[in-house]
Amino acid sequence: MLRNRLFTPGPTSVPEQILLEMASPIIHHRTEEFIKIAAETLENLKYIFQTKNDVFIIASSGTGAMEAAVVNLLSAGDKVAVISGGKFGERFKEIALAYKLEVIPIEVEWGKKLSPETVKEVLAKNPGIKAVFGTLCETSTATHFDVKGIAEVVAGFEDTVFVVDAVSALGAVPCLTDEWKIDVVVTGSQKAFMLPPGLAFMSMSPKAWAMAEKSTLPKFYLDLKKYKKTLAKNDFPFTIPVSLVAGLRKSLEIIKSLTMEKIWEEHRKRAEATRQAFKAAGLKLFSESPSDAVTAVVLPEGVEGDKLVKSLRTKYGMSVAGGQDKLKGKIIRISHLGWQDEFDALTAITAVGVVLRQAGCNIDMEKGLSLAKEILFTSEK
Amino acid sequence: MLRNRLFTPGPTSVPEQILLEMASPIIHHRTEEFIKIAAETLENLKYIFQTKNDVFIIASSGTGAMEAAVVNLLSAGDKVAVISGGKFGERFKEIALAYKLEVIPIEVEWGKKLSPETVKEVLAKNPGIKAVFGTLCETSTATHFDVKGIAEVVAGFEDTVFVVDAVSALGAVPCLTDEWKIDVVVTGSQKAFMLPPGLAFMSMSPKAWAMAEKSTLPKFYLDLKKYKKTLAKNDFPFTIPVSLVAGLRKSLEIIKSLTMEKIWEEHRKRAEATRQAFKAAGLKLFSESPSDAVTAVVLPEGVEGDKLVKSLRTKYGMSVAGGQDKLKGKIIRISHLGWQDEFDALTAITAVGVVLRQAGCNIDMEKGLSLAKEILFTSEK
Repeated sequence: MLRNRLFTPGPTSVPEQILLEMASPIIHHRTEEFIKIAAETLENLKYIFQTKNDVFIIASSGTGAMEAAVVNLLSAGDKVAVISGGKFGERFKEIALAYKLEVIPIEVEWGKKLSPETVKEVLAKNPGIKAVFGTLCETSTATHFDVKGIAEVVAGFEDTVFVVDAVSALGAVPCLTDEWKIDVVVTGSQKAFMLPPGLAFMSMSPKAWAMAEKSTLPKFYLDLKKYKKTLAKNDFPFTIPVSLVAGLRKSLEIIKSLTMEKIWEEHRKRAEATRQAFKAAGLKLFSESPSDAVTAVVLPEGVEGDKLVKSLRTKYGMSVAGGQDKLKGKIIRISHLGWQDEFDALTAITAVGVVLRQAGCNIDMEKGLSLAKEILFTSEK
Repeated sequence: MLRNRLFTPGPTSVPEQILLEMASPIIHHRTEEFIKIAAETLENLKYIFQTKNDVFIIASSGTGAMEAAVVNLLSAGDKVAVISGGKFGERFKEIALAYKLEVIPIEVEWGKKLSPETVKEVLAKNPGIKAVFGTLCETSTATHFDVKGIAEVVAGFEDTVFVVDAVSALGAVPCLTDEWKIDVVVTGSQKAFMLPPGLAFMSMSPKAWAMAEKSTLPKFYLDLKKYKKTLAKNDFPFTIPVSLVAGLRKSLEIIKSLTMEKIWEEHRKRAEATRQAFKAAGLKLFSESPSDAVTAVVLPEGVEGDKLVKSLRTKYGMSVAGGQDKLKGKIIRISHLGWQDEFDALTAITAVGVVLRQAGCNIDMEKGLSLAKEILFTSEK
């Protein structure tokens, strides 16, 4: 009997106590009982977002909330800058173009760093940019972006807001929404929140709301004004996935009891152990600015990534991600997100090492594993 | 310990075996295992829709799919006719107006019938109407619309499609998509499907697709062309709520094994028993064309609907719905949707009768219950 293990950067594993919470009998979404759950949940979401801003829950994938950011902030013909260093940066561009906005692309070579200085230059050279769209962790390349630095730059422009796609990293790596002055943060349930997919969350700063008040792009289901109107009553404009919200309440309770600082540190350690293990084994990381949410390892010449992923799944029940678009077959991505501990990290490293050896790679995984153990177990707890 | 009983027209109760199915460990949405589940689910959805057309799954509430119908079919400035006899008919109007379409309203007094002849006259008098939007069961008034008759009328207009909001009734009352020639049918998971809220489903006819090909309204998350592109691989353009889809697979398996004919008949019997019971007890139904999905009973003068609903919930754990908007406080709505049997129907009638008596109503519930039992148990099984 294969034991299924999820090391994909979403969906991630859901702890049994949350699965069982979601299997509780359905309660109606406009009862006092549910409104109490919603109130607690909406309040605790602010903690994960590290914000005092309103946080909204939308029944959609993360992309729905990305689109909500675009259609609620902007108006026909507006000029926006989109930072794109991978598949998900591209998505913001596609959404903006679907609404016929003028897009100033800030292209970053996949896996490379972006200096906040570059954003500053683009904003200075192109007056009238209403919003800058960026990514906290570009999942397709496992790259961390300096959201703090970029936010600081954008905050210097009175009429420009900064929107961050934090879908794959909020709750896994620091994202200090208020302290860093990020106007809009967007994320999804199926990553660090330890929940199934189906919910998206987003925060809106007062600066973002001021822009939203003037927005003319058409919207209905994603119209955040409707969500804001019901928020005061801890209610939602449209029927909310009650079972997923019940799970969310439980997940936030667990996260809060652990503290964000502890959770960020645990993710950092698992990521660092994984990075050092593969480097020690003789392999290279794809990103020059690796995220603690997910690690992308470059596959040696001759190893077919898709086969490797399939082999892990069929032989050992383990799910990792391959490369997407132009990285298809060339990298393997191992997630550190959510419900994982040190032993899970070692298991993932071991399994990937085993199939790489089976594929004929001459790598020293023992050296890698030994280093990983050191990182995972000797640091202070 | 109060036993919670859901008689709201969504969300409805979810059978234990489906709850447990959804509590299974998460599997990744792009694995062979999940694609097999998706393939079976997408195929069986066609049976519930009674169609050979493609049926799409969207992660959203029913409203998301209603908006998908609008933005995928139409183009800037298009003229549409919207049948509105309650809160949900109004919603189609609001969505169309949000996209600046020209709306020809077909207003129906709440709770009254609409003759398909009226639709014919409107279409004849206003050439160039691209789409007619209607409702199978207007949940706010518990009214059934003659979707079959209206579809026949619209089918006679070559350049006009018929879109039906069947959110609260598909799977509960007959909706023969192909036989009746309905171009677009929209529904949600939390009604007759016996699932939690979080998924919406919609079918698109070839006539609807031909119109969609020319549609210029902006869209991204709700862009059905993206869904159609991935459908061939039983995949989805955005991360799908895997646990809800696992539940859907199970729910469709149960529904299919019972057959639609049997399920429609069971809904009809529960609805008929409820209607006859309250009429025999001396009360009136709100709708002159009552739906078999939900029954609206007019409350006697002096009875406060909201108090009644609250009393049922706090004293007996039973959830029914009150009136919305202009019907607030004036009616009580009892759902017959989904996972219910004859004894549940009797329990709902009994409980509502009990709180009505407690509120001082002089009604003969014994007479009503006796008649309900006759309807529920003496008809052929």
